[in-house]
Amino acid sequence: MTDIPRELAEARATIDNIDAALVHILAERFRCTQNVGHIKARYDLPPADPEREKQQVKRLRKLAEESGLDPVFAEKFLHFIVTEVIRHHEDIKQGYKSNSNNCE
Amino acid sequence: MTDIPRELAEARATIDNIDAALVHILAERFRCTQNVGHIKARYDLPPADPEREKQQVKRLRKLAEESGLDPVFAEKFLHFIVTEVIRHHEDIKQGYKSNSNNCE
Repeated sequence: MTDIPRELAEARATIDNIDAALVHILAERFRCTQNVGHIKARYDLPPADPEREKQQVKRLRKLAEESGLDPVFAEKFLHFIVTEVIRHHEDIKQGYKSNSNNCE
Repeated sequence: MTDIPRELAEARATIDNIDAALVHILAERFRCTQNVGHIKARYDLPPADPEREKQQVKRLRKLAEESGLDPVFAEKFLHFIVTEVIRHHEDIKQGYKSNSNNCE
């Protein structure tokens, strides 16, 4: 292993802890959005909801500003997550449709 | 405001809380990586570190599997963050160079 300055090793240990927290929080977020996918499929609601997303962007940009995160990055981050979520919702909806077709 | 099923409103309230947590943790991660950027610039280390990134990917994929997050998504997520971090590190390095040029 290459020798690195002690202060860099210290910072990386913090980053590794933060990343573990992020992975676990993201896992919980996706558990929650999977549930949303099933609710939407049952109520026949569209996978994407541009109005809801607009509100989320506005709120997260404000929270980003307050916490010192670049609001442009916060918005990009939300889109990154939401793109994945919508893909899951479409899969779930497709699954419901296939099941209902199988019962015909 | 459009009427939505109560269970969808409940899930969205949880998602909003999770997103606030994510924004604050990300803000702290970038505070930490800004510090790393200054350390690297002082020690004249390159902004990117492919070996470190490889270790991070391996660890995060394992954590993702354990927590029920798609490991492919965890890897995409890390690349998304690291791309932004490297951009910051390059800016910081450039800042150090400009300052040292100004002193000549």
